[in-house]
Amino acid sequence: MTVSTLEHPFLKGLLGQEAVARFFSAEEDLAAMSAFERGLAKAEADAGVISNAARDAVLTALEKTTFDLDALCVSTATDGVVVPEFLRQIKEKLPEEHHGALHFGATSQDVIDTSLTIRLQGALKVIEGELVGLVQELAELKDKYAGREIIGRTRMQQALPIPLAHRFDGWHRPLNDLLNELASVHEKISYLQFAGAVGTLDKLGDKAALVRKNLAAELSLRDPMGSWHTDRRRLMALANWLSELTGSIGKLGQDVIQMAVNEVQEVYLIGSGGSSAMPHKQNPVRGEVLVTLARFNAMNISGMHQALLHENERSGSSWTLEWMVLPQMVVTGAASIRRARELLAQIDDIPDMDKDLPG
Amino acid sequence: MTVSTLEHPFLKGLLGQEAVARFFSAEEDLAAMSAFERGLAKAEADAGVISNAARDAVLTALEKTTFDLDALCVSTATDGVVVPEFLRQIKEKLPEEHHGALHFGATSQDVIDTSLTIRLQGALKVIEGELVGLVQELAELKDKYAGREIIGRTRMQQALPIPLAHRFDGWHRPLNDLLNELASVHEKISYLQFAGAVGTLDKLGDKAALVRKNLAAELSLRDPMGSWHTDRRRLMALANWLSELTGSIGKLGQDVIQMAVNEVQEVYLIGSGGSSAMPHKQNPVRGEVLVTLARFNAMNISGMHQALLHENERSGSSWTLEWMVLPQMVVTGAASIRRARELLAQIDDIPDMDKDLPG
Amino acid sequence: MTVSTLEHPFLKGLLGQEAVARFFSAEEDLAAMSAFERGLAKAEADAGVISNAARDAVLTALEKTTFDLDALCVSTATDGVVVPEFLRQIKEKLPEEHHGALHFGATSQDVIDTSLTIRLQGALKVIEGELVGLVQELAELKDKYAGREIIGRTRMQQALPIPLAHRFDGWHRPLNDLLNELASVHEKISYLQFAGAVGTLDKLGDKAALVRKNLAAELSLRDPMGSWHTDRRRLMALANWLSELTGSIGKLGQDVIQMAVNEVQEVYLIGSGGSSAMPHKQNPVRGEVLVTLARFNAMNISGMHQALLHENERSGSSWTLEWMVLPQMVVTGAASIRRARELLAQIDDIPDMDKDLPG
Amino acid sequence: MTVSTLEHPFLKGLLGQEAVARFFSAEEDLAAMSAFERGLAKAEADAGVISNAARDAVLTALEKTTFDLDALCVSTATDGVVVPEFLRQIKEKLPEEHHGALHFGATSQDVIDTSLTIRLQGALKVIEGELVGLVQELAELKDKYAGREIIGRTRMQQALPIPLAHRFDGWHRPLNDLLNELASVHEKISYLQFAGAVGTLDKLGDKAALVRKNLAAELSLRDPMGSWHTDRRRLMALANWLSELTGSIGKLGQDVIQMAVNEVQEVYLIGSGGSSAMPHKQNPVRGEVLVTLARFNAMNISGMHQALLHENERSGSSWTLEWMVLPQMVVTGAASIRRARELLAQIDDIPDMDKDLPG
Repeated sequence: MTVSTLEHPFLKGLLGQEAVARFFSAEEDLAAMSAFERGLAKAEADAGVISNAARDAVLTALEKTTFDLDALCVSTATDGVVVPEFLRQIKEKLPEEHHGALHFGATSQDVIDTSLTIRLQGALKVIEGELVGLVQELAELKDKYAGREIIGRTRMQQALPIPLAHRFDGWHRPLNDLLNELASVHEKISYLQFAGAVGTLDKLGDKAALVRKNLAAELSLRDPMGSWHTDRRRLMALANWLSELTGSIGKLGQDVIQMAVNEVQEVYLIGSGGSSAMPHKQNPVRGEVLVTLARFNAMNISGMHQALLHENERSGSSWTLEWMVLPQMVVTGAASIRRARELLAQIDDIPDMDKDLPG
Repeated sequence: MTVSTLEHPFLKGLLGQEAVARFFSAEEDLAAMSAFERGLAKAEADAGVISNAARDAVLTALEKTTFDLDALCVSTATDGVVVPEFLRQIKEKLPEEHHGALHFGATSQDVIDTSLTIRLQGALKVIEGELVGLVQELAELKDKYAGREIIGRTRMQQALPIPLAHRFDGWHRPLNDLLNELASVHEKISYLQFAGAVGTLDKLGDKAALVRKNLAAELSLRDPMGSWHTDRRRLMALANWLSELTGSIGKLGQDVIQMAVNEVQEVYLIGSGGSSAMPHKQNPVRGEVLVTLARFNAMNISGMHQALLHENERSGSSWTLEWMVLPQMVVTGAASIRRARELLAQIDDIPDMDKDLPG
Repeated sequence: MTVSTLEHPFLKGLLGQEAVARFFSAEEDLAAMSAFERGLAKAEADAGVISNAARDAVLTALEKTTFDLDALCVSTATDGVVVPEFLRQIKEKLPEEHHGALHFGATSQDVIDTSLTIRLQGALKVIEGELVGLVQELAELKDKYAGREIIGRTRMQQALPIPLAHRFDGWHRPLNDLLNELASVHEKISYLQFAGAVGTLDKLGDKAALVRKNLAAELSLRDPMGSWHTDRRRLMALANWLSELTGSIGKLGQDVIQMAVNEVQEVYLIGSGGSSAMPHKQNPVRGEVLVTLARFNAMNISGMHQALLHENERSGSSWTLEWMVLPQMVVTGAASIRRARELLAQIDDIPDMDKDLPG
Repeated sequence: MTVSTLEHPFLKGLLGQEAVARFFSAEEDLAAMSAFERGLAKAEADAGVISNAARDAVLTALEKTTFDLDALCVSTATDGVVVPEFLRQIKEKLPEEHHGALHFGATSQDVIDTSLTIRLQGALKVIEGELVGLVQELAELKDKYAGREIIGRTRMQQALPIPLAHRFDGWHRPLNDLLNELASVHEKISYLQFAGAVGTLDKLGDKAALVRKNLAAELSLRDPMGSWHTDRRRLMALANWLSELTGSIGKLGQDVIQMAVNEVQEVYLIGSGGSSAMPHKQNPVRGEVLVTLARFNAMNISGMHQALLHENERSGSSWTLEWMVLPQMVVTGAASIRRARELLAQIDDIPDMDKDLPG
């Protein structure tokens, strides 16, 4: 396989970003889900909700469990979530007397949302590092060509000369702003999900807030002070940010493509794309891909917003729609930054302006 | 006419919000464009860029001009923007010696983006007032039914009893959060656009920053300290907010529809929708419409993100796409709040839970 | 007003098409709804379902009724459909003894879907005429420049010379194909809707099929032989066709923009767009607008597909979503053809290829 | 991995369909690409364009080549297409004197589009078989419950009793129609792509049509009689069909969910989804998933329509966007049929109507 170009054996170098994609593997998911159950056992033992013996038994069982992916797959098809079978497999390693202590008071959505959150921490760290690099490279580009001019173009026609730095500002500023906004987006998606079957932590009585606080601390996440089972706007903040990111980088890509038009020759790229039929060609492939990735996320964002409509205390259909859309938005965002950096590295020269300027 | 249900003679009560829609009339647009030119003349006179006599002549001409909409329409079809003909009509009232002083250093996008910004100030004020009302009514609803229980439902099945307040929290909290975020969104779209033909205010030399500052002050807008001709993320912040708003309200609508299912009867609505064929029916029309408006904006948001890809110093095609999408997002958002308030006013009673609870 | 650029006083020449937009006016809608009720009275009298006297009374009442749009608007806000108040206004002119004969056996969706269908017949006729013209003009363009060459470009780079006719084929063929497919699309949206409250024409007993057949004949529509209350794929066929149309024309627009790049100069346009700041510019405005319209419909198509999910026998939320999206797709399609014809008329010359060809 | 739920180790049973997903593996792609080159060598030898010896050498080289996926990935990142490196690897097994005979006259897009086409033949065959099964099971369901009644519901409220068969018709008819339309869709996507570097088969002179005809025959595809490098409406026909399919099945899913609401109990499902927190629950998971898949494709369709805008003779950015979207639409369509069949198999009983009917 794969259906998805983002992790396809030979397309992923063009359209994916493995350092981020790996956070969406089954293995990482199961590891994060296990971390949730481990943290929960500790938090509940600390709060006196389960015994220390139960906690230790749960921790041992989690250590011993190697998950049977096929069995997980079969059950997920029926349950809609992997959690019941995930717990059943852990219970195989857990003395029956402690079965009640595992996952106590939690619900599938707590585990799954928190697993996503844990993994997004890692993914966003990679993305941030990459974006810092891209923003810095854009600043360097601006410095390198300080004093140069280029013909400004509006509505696809030559307008008036502008400092090349002005064009570069149009690439740098939105990305620098997005980098500055990342901390706030990151904060929004660093909240534990732990609210129980119907969002009220009903089984934990007056220990609910304490367990939630403990669990958040165990997982180095923030305490949400309530449920976000149906209020998905935190994920939306990330999705919006990602699509603004790919859109802003798409502008850079589109500009480079236009600058590289043969007759225009405002940029010389090295190591551009080869053609199977025309060896003379130097295709601005990474510029084109930046446009593709931008349009892909501008499509995906619609799915995320459609998924806002959670009915009642949990909408299976809307929640599942998120699963289909958000991971591909994240990897698309990461791929876009990577491709942009590769594209900038291909810029060999931007020649001095030498045009007959219009009247 | 109209093509658009948002301002259709008999559909606008269902799908529009006139108090907000009016900001998108041609009249309001021309008034705001005139305010831009007026402010510019003052700002440039104050900065010594044009003479006081020129300023006065421009102000007088603006006062005297009654715009010929048909002529504006004809020219816009060719120019892609209304501004050249708009200026031509003003110049008819302006002594020729002062023609050069009108719109000096500005470009069409400055006028059009600023006109939009000016009108969005008014539109957002109405929206804020409405949202304050909705959030308060939700808080009152919560109080009114304090202590009541309802069956929590997940994946469209009865789960466990929850306090009715928990369901209402799921409606109130996201909207309260959105209300709190509105100030920041509003701030983002309160910036003057004034950057000249290619975004560099090239004609104004060292007076550029001063004129921009003066003009912002004249129009009670913020000084952008640069151009946002191609960086459209400020509008995107508004678009994202609007779609999160309609999505969050859509959840409320969907819940009410489910609660009003005949066999469920968790809510009694008064004054619901009649049927031409079945007089006995009480259709939860406004609940359905909230879902419609949410899905409409979740579609529109995609267009806005596609429009991020501005090539060079101005993209006619991307910019124009914004014109087609953003106004209908704003009115849809306003309509959604209005309909939600009307729906809440229809809630006659929410009966005590009286169900055989599942085991 | 208006919110919608498609019918905006000074933007409609750029982004609308009045000859098609007018079919979506309230007046045309009410006229078509009245035609439905008139046809129904005749069809039911012919089938012996209502008396001839009742029929005559209904026809007379319809003739006498001038609709009060404000009252229609108020009621639609509550009922979700205009029909109950529409009927009430007619009944004011109808002797009470015949009230039962009006709209007998029909439901709101029958009237509204059929009114849309009737009006789409007219709109598609205009669109077809325009498309015939465009396809012919493209054929003429091909003839005019027969024998010329241009540099073929792939991935935005010069590739190899091609006959100019090959480029034009890439514009002509899809549009010619779409024209050929139009008859089939048109057939699909020429079906009467008449199925009664729940889609079974329950009130008409064994006369149901006869009345439906008669009514279809009265309205020059096809007999659907059943209900399409929840099966909206006929409208989807139109929506898909419209977005393929605007997409195919968008390609033409994008090509012209690229050909008109100053350094490329593969096309000379006359009467292009003026700039408020740079009189020397000749903006390929209509080319850009073709791209805008294409992207707008590529966004809208998503809303139409989301609206496919009709629950039960009628979904208020999905059906209403269609109302918000389909009309603007139709007018956008019509505008696209019109703008393309105007753009072709601007082509002054396409110079002989005179390039240093790559190796 | 994987990022994509469609092929995720434990989510694919819920959201994927392996029998169709496998056509999008790298292995199947390379096999189909090899089939193209093999067929081309034969077709060109038959037409006298290359020698029989060259043909035999190419066939032998293709047999001997085992592709190095990592090397393919590295080059694709630069070239934007896998083909140059794909050919290079084949050439390693091909005597240098015959290098010119490999891929003669073809371009990357010919190989890639044809590979997709070949694989879609297989995918559509699986989809057709599944859809035949679903349509038949719906017909059986209708028979099984012949004579039963259910309360028809419009706008989410009880309306009037309807035959249960009428509800089932609303599920069966659109799917039966889509099955009938599949042959025509399938025909549209059964065309060879073979047009050379710029769409004109320039290298083949007067042998072009013959080679194309031969090649189509070799691959059991239709002769396109020209290029469809930039005219993507054939793929669009498939995409539209797939989204109408998932939308129509989504309606079925949504209906079942509503029928399964505890208080409504119009359907009893067996083997429904379990909950990690509430063992008593029977979640209509597959119904919900049908809605998810519908909304996912209703989002994806927008990306496909955005990808219609191919500039010049090949748009890297638009073409690549198709790669990201179409495969996931195909697998989503296949998953939807599978899940619907599984859901129908879960229907244990649909009880007799026993309701107090409204007035």
